[in-house]
Amino acid sequence: MTLTLTPLPGIPLIRPGDDLADVLLAALSAARLTLEDGDILVLAQKIVSKAEGRLVHLQTVSPSQAALDLATRSEKDPRLCELILRESRQILRVRPGTIIVEHRLGFVCANAGIDHSNVRGEGGNPEDWVLLLPEDPDRSAAAIRARLEAASGKRLGVLIIDSHGRAWRLGIVGTCIGLSGIPALVDKRGDPDLFGFRLRITQIAAADELAAAASLVMGQADEGLPAVHVRGFPYPLREGSFKELPRPKEQDLFR
Amino acid sequence: MTLTLTPLPGIPLIRPGDDLADVLLAALSAARLTLEDGDILVLAQKIVSKAEGRLVHLQTVSPSQAALDLATRSEKDPRLCELILRESRQILRVRPGTIIVEHRLGFVCANAGIDHSNVRGEGGNPEDWVLLLPEDPDRSAAAIRARLEAASGKRLGVLIIDSHGRAWRLGIVGTCIGLSGIPALVDKRGDPDLFGFRLRITQIAAADELAAAASLVMGQADEGLPAVHVRGFPYPLREGSFKELPRPKEQDLFR
Repeated sequence: MTLTLTPLPGIPLIRPGDDLADVLLAALSAARLTLEDGDILVLAQKIVSKAEGRLVHLQTVSPSQAALDLATRSEKDPRLCELILRESRQILRVRPGTIIVEHRLGFVCANAGIDHSNVRGEGGNPEDWVLLLPEDPDRSAAAIRARLEAASGKRLGVLIIDSHGRAWRLGIVGTCIGLSGIPALVDKRGDPDLFGFRLRITQIAAADELAAAASLVMGQADEGLPAVHVRGFPYPLREGSFKELPRPKEQDLFR
Repeated sequence: MTLTLTPLPGIPLIRPGDDLADVLLAALSAARLTLEDGDILVLAQKIVSKAEGRLVHLQTVSPSQAALDLATRSEKDPRLCELILRESRQILRVRPGTIIVEHRLGFVCANAGIDHSNVRGEGGNPEDWVLLLPEDPDRSAAAIRARLEAASGKRLGVLIIDSHGRAWRLGIVGTCIGLSGIPALVDKRGDPDLFGFRLRITQIAAADELAAAASLVMGQADEGLPAVHVRGFPYPLREGSFKELPRPKEQDLFR
């Protein structure tokens, strides 16, 4: 079956309090895209975070001593470092210009996912606005999914993605940070291979594969295509959670 | 623009010496898919490796002392360990059941990408056949691309992928190991964001995003869908190489 990913044109700049489900339904309608059972909407975290009012002006942030220390080591703004510390469970690596953390949500990323580009709130120095990730992206996805399902009468999935760097490889890739109604991992344990051996590879990170696919057509979401309609996801939909994805620390050889 | 990914049905089991370009052209024709300028064929490494005769029977392998040591530490077959050492620049982590290496091609993966499932050669104990990665996947991609372009008269891309595990996250994802005619990285350095700031995120690993997307519809290639036709890749095609992707060791904080 063909997998099709269509970015929704005409999504406006999102502001705190905007109703993202309404925005998506309007964009789908304008693009003459219908929703069918099994369709998935993939959303860049930025529009979810903005709608949820996760904008912070750095002038409102008082850096702690730990933030001042982190700022010295990373050569970053101490107020940004304060927010990074608040949004993180653990600081994993610090170099000038680079802070890699375990985010409080459980994934490893740079700068706790705090975003500076294409972010602007009301008032203050416009360059001092930053955007935190959604408080609970699984919950955000579930709320949007419920609205889209109610409007369409169809069984849908919603995936929220961000762009993450990786160990070992250059470049960022679209990565799942929250979802509703789709599997994060697809378990292949025990499936026989073509010759009847057992497969040793056990789990496919299907939500991350879809995140990467959608990210490709978003062109990084900074060009104004922060929502993608997906048809033809090849695995059965089920209830799922981002929480399936983080590797337990004791199994992680690269911390 | 919509991105569409269509797995090619009816690809037969590939044997050493098979002409993969002919197989792909026949499968495209059977699926009534035409090739247009900008289309990309994504191939699972397994069919490329098999066509190139990269099957090895473990009975033909004599383990060195280093392989015997690695076998003790990893609890894996010493003959397989010998092949892993030959295919690797460096062994990064060893635990019982797990060997993570820097492959001679420059990427980090488990077991040097040596595959055991759905692999069978002629003769010997059928469970002792394993499959090495292609000698030079960029070169493999270029050769197949040249054949497909000659047959179609169109400007095409070819991407060869494998499924890799990641640091920090469970599950495998489709990942680029070789390509021809498409960018591995898309450079966003210096592009202004919507408000005119400079983007700090600099490079998109577009080939890895496409690899993940294609992997999704392959369903892991063990189900017989090892080739995917892609239309709508959103970045300009150019000459490219897998070699754009490995992070230089001195910039890698997670070795």
